[in-house]
Amino acid sequence: MIVLPLIERKRDGGRLTPDEWRALADAYAAGDVPDYQMAALLMAIYFRGLDRGETGALTEAMLRSGAALDLAHLPAGRVDKHSTGGVGDKVSLVLAPLVASLGVAVPMMSGRGLGHTGGTLDKLEAIPGFRTDLSLAEAARQVERLGCALIGQTGEIAPADRRMYALRDVTGTVEAIPLIAASIMSKKLAEGLTGLVLDVKRGSGAFLPELERGLELARTMIALGADHGCPTVALLTAMDRPLGRACGNALEVEESVLALRGEGPDDLMAVTYALGAEMLVLGGAFATRDAAHAAMRAAVADGRAARKFAEIVEAQGGNPGVVDDPAVLPQAPHTRVWRAPRHGVVARVEPRAVGRGVIALGGGRRAVADRVDPAVGFVLTARPGMRVAAGEPLATVHARDEAGLEAGCRALDAAILVADEAPPPLLLVSHRVTAAGVEVLAEDPS
Amino acid sequence: MIVLPLIERKRDGGRLTPDEWRALADAYAAGDVPDYQMAALLMAIYFRGLDRGETGALTEAMLRSGAALDLAHLPAGRVDKHSTGGVGDKVSLVLAPLVASLGVAVPMMSGRGLGHTGGTLDKLEAIPGFRTDLSLAEAARQVERLGCALIGQTGEIAPADRRMYALRDVTGTVEAIPLIAASIMSKKLAEGLTGLVLDVKRGSGAFLPELERGLELARTMIALGADHGCPTVALLTAMDRPLGRACGNALEVEESVLALRGEGPDDLMAVTYALGAEMLVLGGAFATRDAAHAAMRAAVADGRAARKFAEIVEAQGGNPGVVDDPAVLPQAPHTRVWRAPRHGVVARVEPRAVGRGVIALGGGRRAVADRVDPAVGFVLTARPGMRVAAGEPLATVHARDEAGLEAGCRALDAAILVADEAPPPLLLVSHRVTAAGVEVLAEDPS
Repeated sequence: MIVLPLIERKRDGGRLTPDEWRALADAYAAGDVPDYQMAALLMAIYFRGLDRGETGALTEAMLRSGAALDLAHLPAGRVDKHSTGGVGDKVSLVLAPLVASLGVAVPMMSGRGLGHTGGTLDKLEAIPGFRTDLSLAEAARQVERLGCALIGQTGEIAPADRRMYALRDVTGTVEAIPLIAASIMSKKLAEGLTGLVLDVKRGSGAFLPELERGLELARTMIALGADHGCPTVALLTAMDRPLGRACGNALEVEESVLALRGEGPDDLMAVTYALGAEMLVLGGAFATRDAAHAAMRAAVADGRAARKFAEIVEAQGGNPGVVDDPAVLPQAPHTRVWRAPRHGVVARVEPRAVGRGVIALGGGRRAVADRVDPAVGFVLTARPGMRVAAGEPLATVHARDEAGLEAGCRALDAAILVADEAPPPLLLVSHRVTAAGVEVLAEDPS
Repeated sequence: MIVLPLIERKRDGGRLTPDEWRALADAYAAGDVPDYQMAALLMAIYFRGLDRGETGALTEAMLRSGAALDLAHLPAGRVDKHSTGGVGDKVSLVLAPLVASLGVAVPMMSGRGLGHTGGTLDKLEAIPGFRTDLSLAEAARQVERLGCALIGQTGEIAPADRRMYALRDVTGTVEAIPLIAASIMSKKLAEGLTGLVLDVKRGSGAFLPELERGLELARTMIALGADHGCPTVALLTAMDRPLGRACGNALEVEESVLALRGEGPDDLMAVTYALGAEMLVLGGAFATRDAAHAAMRAAVADGRAARKFAEIVEAQGGNPGVVDDPAVLPQAPHTRVWRAPRHGVVARVEPRAVGRGVIALGGGRRAVADRVDPAVGFVLTARPGMRVAAGEPLATVHARDEAGLEAGCRALDAAILVADEAPPPLLLVSHRVTAAGVEVLAEDPS
């Protein structure tokens, strides 16, 4: 594979053909293209971009560098959700069993914590015994049987993307929208979906904080989905504060279980229902989002959603008792309450500072090989706009030791601001993007 | 060494500090920075550039990653010439002994053939026995004794540049002016010079064919020289046709010997004298370029220049008899005359096609490890603007075998165009650039 002319062409603003993308992805996955040439190409792409055809060809090339889930024989629609990453974002744990309980299959492939954000795999693994490393064949059988599997990206899926993603992480080429979109879609298309819903985070805690960049990513992925026969809808949701109250792996599993039992915080439920309604309509289970909303509330109320979660946990080797008694989860030995430093209004709960605080407690990774402590984290009652008295409890730190309590409190000192007044927070769900265009939403779903 | 933040800063249009450049160059020379991160940084530099301070800091950092020639104790000025590379460009072989014979020291470090262009080291090594791999200590002693040494970039000189240059070659980051300038100057400054003359080629056979890019490179290198106490002058010279008649290593040595004996082609002599006059004035041997011109003609006429070349050849292990009898050079066993295909005017002698023809004959490299056949090449009598009759001999192919004769003739078919009329060729020496500005020259030197 002669890569230099491709680098030079992209550098000079030209385009690569689908055959060239295919040959490049295969050679790179096979180790026949050196990382230094791929790094130079990625940086050239960062500056020159990829057009719709090239982004699609790269996606296709990475997809075909590996295997795919074969679920085409299933009668039900198969829909997944992908989030661009947030703090306290445990939506997947609630959404997947909820949607599956209503007859749409959810073959969900998730990731680990990245930067300041948490990862669904780390959260699931807080459940004693839970296995996320199913093979594709195991995952396919479980989806057939239960309508849902919650797995990680196996070595079989898009190996070219796997290598390229690791390289982007160390070469300053993560934040390129065509590369982000192609990376996500190459994995999602390998799940054999009939539809995909994207949760594109916006606000200070998002990887792409600016609205315009979030919309561009949404449009790029929707176009990719359309070009590959996978109808895709994106919701832009708020990540100017953590989602829900719990931040930390076991604490988030506990909150997810409460949510599945109808006791979840309002913001978490609103985002979950909004995404779930899109999935259920895309999956063909309901004709309208309103009907889907009503069905989801019913599935939570009558216990079907929680039972589905218990079935999935059991099928993947975890302790299904977690649904009845979250105390089976690992518990941090030390807790400390963090109190409002003054009278006033909560003006800010900064997700990046909270996320970094979870890492400081040992609940996230500084390096890929780090082990994660599932028990530690925060439970935040502070919400932006809330009036508070001096000394009022606003959060609890869950730590492994005394040093962790100190580190956690310092993180909250940086994260939570009580002031005389508070700027209005972002709408929880502010934009709905489809192939037809962008719909700006006026108020939060109730 | 944590490189990622430096890549991201440069990618986003920021600058690196001198300490950061220094640490980066040292770590890269030591093998502590992976090539993929350096490749990403180089591509970011390609797009974002380096300002004058950064280019200087990178130059300094690469220079200090290795050793330098210590010639500060010499009473004479020490001046080198650097060419951006051409076809038939054997100026160094004539210029270095000529200038040294007039009392200015020339510690000349040269390179090998690159792309379609030839390299001074390859030409010198066509002389039986000639060694270009002197150590810095050997080179210093020879410069003290003879006023000149003709050597390659040793492992001691600028090892960071050495590695970076090899990486640029395979990552599409060669054509970035600050990187070109820093690479050249880091090596030239390691020669302990008191002055430097640049031969910046322009026209279709140059690496930077456009006048504006050539001028930008000249200005960048002149600024670097000024910032490092090495006054630098650049001449822009024509590379829209080969320089002189011979193209190929031994053939060019033969033409150089003829030039040193006063029998060189006019264009080669004009460029050599123009560069030599700058070197002799920078080196303090003459007050004016006119005086230097007269002295050079005298040194050629009375044999001092040729004798100096013989001394250098002998000191470096070569057969000094080459000066009296070029037949000691390797001779190609087969020759064939190429004739004008029609009556008309020579409209083009394309240097890139001629240079690729030399490679096709085995006289240049396709890959770094290739061995070069010193004997093969072309002697071209065709000059742009020359009136020719159909069948008139315009060139001779010197080849190893019959297949080489065929390949050589095909290369000339592509290189030489005879037409009804010819565009005017570029001026041989069109611009003179100094720290004071650009002087546009009106006519060729006679």
